[in-house]
Amino acid sequence: MISRCFFRYLKQTSLADYVAFRSFSRSQQTPAAVTSSFIDSLRTAVGDNNVSTSDAIREQHGHDESHHEVYKPDVVVFAESVEQVSKVAKLCNEKKVPLIPFGSGTGLEGGVNALSGGVTLDVTKMNQIVEVNAEDFDCTVQPGVMRIALNSYLRDTGLWFPIDPGADASICGMCATSASGTNAVRYGTMRENVLNLQVVLPDGRVIHTAGKGKRCRKTSAGYNLTNLFVGSEGTLGIITQATIKLYGLPEKTIAAVCHFKTVQEAVDTVVQIMQSGITMAKLEFLDDKAIEAFNKFSKYNMPVAQSLFLEFHGPALGLEDQFNTVKDLIELNGGLGLQMATDEDERKRLWKARHEMLWACTALIPGSKPYSTDICVPISHLPEVIIKTKQWIDEAKVLAPVLGHVGDGNFHVILPMTLDTGQNEIMKALALQIALLAMDLNGTCTGEHGIGMGKCHLLEKEIGPVGIQVLKDVKKCFDPNGIMNPGKIIS
Amino acid sequence: MISRCFFRYLKQTSLADYVAFRSFSRSQQTPAAVTSSFIDSLRTAVGDNNVSTSDAIREQHGHDESHHEVYKPDVVVFAESVEQVSKVAKLCNEKKVPLIPFGSGTGLEGGVNALSGGVTLDVTKMNQIVEVNAEDFDCTVQPGVMRIALNSYLRDTGLWFPIDPGADASICGMCATSASGTNAVRYGTMRENVLNLQVVLPDGRVIHTAGKGKRCRKTSAGYNLTNLFVGSEGTLGIITQATIKLYGLPEKTIAAVCHFKTVQEAVDTVVQIMQSGITMAKLEFLDDKAIEAFNKFSKYNMPVAQSLFLEFHGPALGLEDQFNTVKDLIELNGGLGLQMATDEDERKRLWKARHEMLWACTALIPGSKPYSTDICVPISHLPEVIIKTKQWIDEAKVLAPVLGHVGDGNFHVILPMTLDTGQNEIMKALALQIALLAMDLNGTCTGEHGIGMGKCHLLEKEIGPVGIQVLKDVKKCFDPNGIMNPGKIIS
Repeated sequence: MISRCFFRYLKQTSLADYVAFRSFSRSQQTPAAVTSSFIDSLRTAVGDNNVSTSDAIREQHGHDESHHEVYKPDVVVFAESVEQVSKVAKLCNEKKVPLIPFGSGTGLEGGVNALSGGVTLDVTKMNQIVEVNAEDFDCTVQPGVMRIALNSYLRDTGLWFPIDPGADASICGMCATSASGTNAVRYGTMRENVLNLQVVLPDGRVIHTAGKGKRCRKTSAGYNLTNLFVGSEGTLGIITQATIKLYGLPEKTIAAVCHFKTVQEAVDTVVQIMQSGITMAKLEFLDDKAIEAFNKFSKYNMPVAQSLFLEFHGPALGLEDQFNTVKDLIELNGGLGLQMATDEDERKRLWKARHEMLWACTALIPGSKPYSTDICVPISHLPEVIIKTKQWIDEAKVLAPVLGHVGDGNFHVILPMTLDTGQNEIMKALALQIALLAMDLNGTCTGEHGIGMGKCHLLEKEIGPVGIQVLKDVKKCFDPNGIMNPGKIIS
Repeated sequence: MISRCFFRYLKQTSLADYVAFRSFSRSQQTPAAVTSSFIDSLRTAVGDNNVSTSDAIREQHGHDESHHEVYKPDVVVFAESVEQVSKVAKLCNEKKVPLIPFGSGTGLEGGVNALSGGVTLDVTKMNQIVEVNAEDFDCTVQPGVMRIALNSYLRDTGLWFPIDPGADASICGMCATSASGTNAVRYGTMRENVLNLQVVLPDGRVIHTAGKGKRCRKTSAGYNLTNLFVGSEGTLGIITQATIKLYGLPEKTIAAVCHFKTVQEAVDTVVQIMQSGITMAKLEFLDDKAIEAFNKFSKYNMPVAQSLFLEFHGPALGLEDQFNTVKDLIELNGGLGLQMATDEDERKRLWKARHEMLWACTALIPGSKPYSTDICVPISHLPEVIIKTKQWIDEAKVLAPVLGHVGDGNFHVILPMTLDTGQNEIMKALALQIALLAMDLNGTCTGEHGIGMGKCHLLEKEIGPVGIQVLKDVKKCFDPNGIMNPGKIIS
């Protein structure tokens, strides 16, 4: 049922688009091939204690951190080695059983939900840091290595891996999603930071995308398989090892917060900072609603206003000059209360709170689950898109904070999904309309969360019918039986 | 015939490797489908004056700037629009006639040589700069737009496209090769700098790899088709438009040259500079032989020694401090005669001369053609690889300058190929041995020149049999009839 109120927000949207967008739901059946003898063969492959059909374990593996409906796999398998991953893939491929790789489960687009049942392959037991080449600024990790654990391990080397999606995701999961986050404006996304991947193909064969042991900074040797698997969301194979770039810890770090009376002032400042050529490490926008959530959840007392959180990394000399240039721009645009966080503990507390914003926003409406939009546009279109988005939120009378990595043109609206179906439909209509606006303005429906199960229909619009056909051909090329994470990216 | 002297340089190399490496040569026959009625259909598609079967035009399109043997196409077609490119592709695909895209012809691995004859599609008439979005730091160009012309056009905007392979290549050709060059150590390679590509598929369909009109800085929407076409060397489709990142011209630039007594000192300095975390814009090594060629060709009078050419880009404040830190490292390692080129004209003259080094080296032996190796290794292996390479060159008693983008771990040996077959075989043996050494030390046989026609056998070794099978599957997925630039990347 589509009530009158939607059309208010969907003036520019065809009814067909909206129905396609909101109508995701499928009945889930155990694939016929998942027999007890099939499960026995999995046990033989990985050991009895590494196979579970318990309801709790299946439930836990049937969803990520998003609002998307839970789809439980029939079996959960824990792999302890690439050989075991290969065996499991081969078994699933032979019987055409769906196979879903599972890392930290911190995704936001239902990337791990087992839409057609089958086997979920949990790789978190493979959690070794294989090697750190400090002198070459690279390291190699297994798929169970989490971002925070890696950076703790690296601390003594003076190096770090800066890509930071907020959640404590696994590095290989971040590869699969093409994640980024707050530091991308300076250090790039996963696309720019992966040197090599070990991948188990659906038929069990193992490849190294850049060749075994290769970790040079540059290569033009053959098709870029590395970046084909980065962002493939478990639909082409299982990433079992990643070699990634590391960076020297910045000699000096300056963090700062400032506030604006209007969204226009705040976002104009962002555009001017980016156009000044200063290399920001973080450049985040939080609207008044987001600051309210921030204050409440993390016990801050910031002015409830349109705000920017900034961070500068660099050699000590010259960094304050960059800060001062940015300060001038902020003041020119009417920015107020610029505060510098120089104390490391205070800085860490600030960014920890920023990273918890998904939960802070959700906590505004107890019992809700977060539905995060993720559009990204060229920076010149950012003021228009954010201002329109805020207007639509106001018109819809929903409580939806706006925040994001605006230095890249990427921001999120956190829509709290509840048991109120009518309200949820308004949320979905809003999300759709924001995505369509971004796509009209040279942008994408997903800057860093991926397509998952929720945006297949938007991807079709974004890349066009020929583009989608090419994606389908690529999928078929790697996964002719269609077992890998079915229903994701391509519906 | 393999004479005794090779084995001296191939102690670590199997005879089979060597034979595979050196035995490239094929008899070229006009494909049966290239009939006069087929050529008439091409004329109908693009106009009479855009189709040539003249020997001079075919010869000109049958080679790039490398030593590789000329393989002439049967017909050269000049396209003036994407519609014409599409028509030509469709005609070739229907008749299974080889189709080779041709831009500036400045490649170094025989990427345009028409190994199986067929149609070469020259896209240089499509030379419009489609749009420049100065406020978003991006622009879109047709395939005939050359690097230098683009930067001249951009001058008034305060922006530039820094990727600089030396030659005045076309931007889309640089996409096809995954080119890089002197500035990659700061700005990355083409892989990191392309936002979107328009591509004509072999069957004539047109796609935009990131969706039509998309030019956002970040996306995680579907498989990364953009980076699948970057580096595909014309084997998957024809790139007809590229949207690329631009950068603000640096506020201040410092260039400098210094000299060392030994290779070890020079290369140790490079490793220490890179490990210091200072962001160099250029960090080039030229050995004594290269400096000799440099002095002769470009009328300089530099000390004939192992040398580093450096450049720093950045905000004026702090840049001299970075220079001074590097100066200290240079002096600690015994570097001499550090000269700063602050005058812009002098700086431009210096880098122009550096970019002409391929020809400067070739001029050492009049009548020779350059054969450039292109290995890239992790920076910590660079001293070992360069020192061994120099030893082998000395033992072989050949005149082969060593130079390259050592900040990335990438360097070239310029081997002058002459009519002396015996000498040429020594050159090839040397090139092979250097590539195998790099591949043993976590490196690649090609950092930026691509595979082309000369390194298919090395790619097989580098990526392994399963990897090669995957590349073949990808090729087949995009080009089932195998018409696109046959014999390149995959033999």
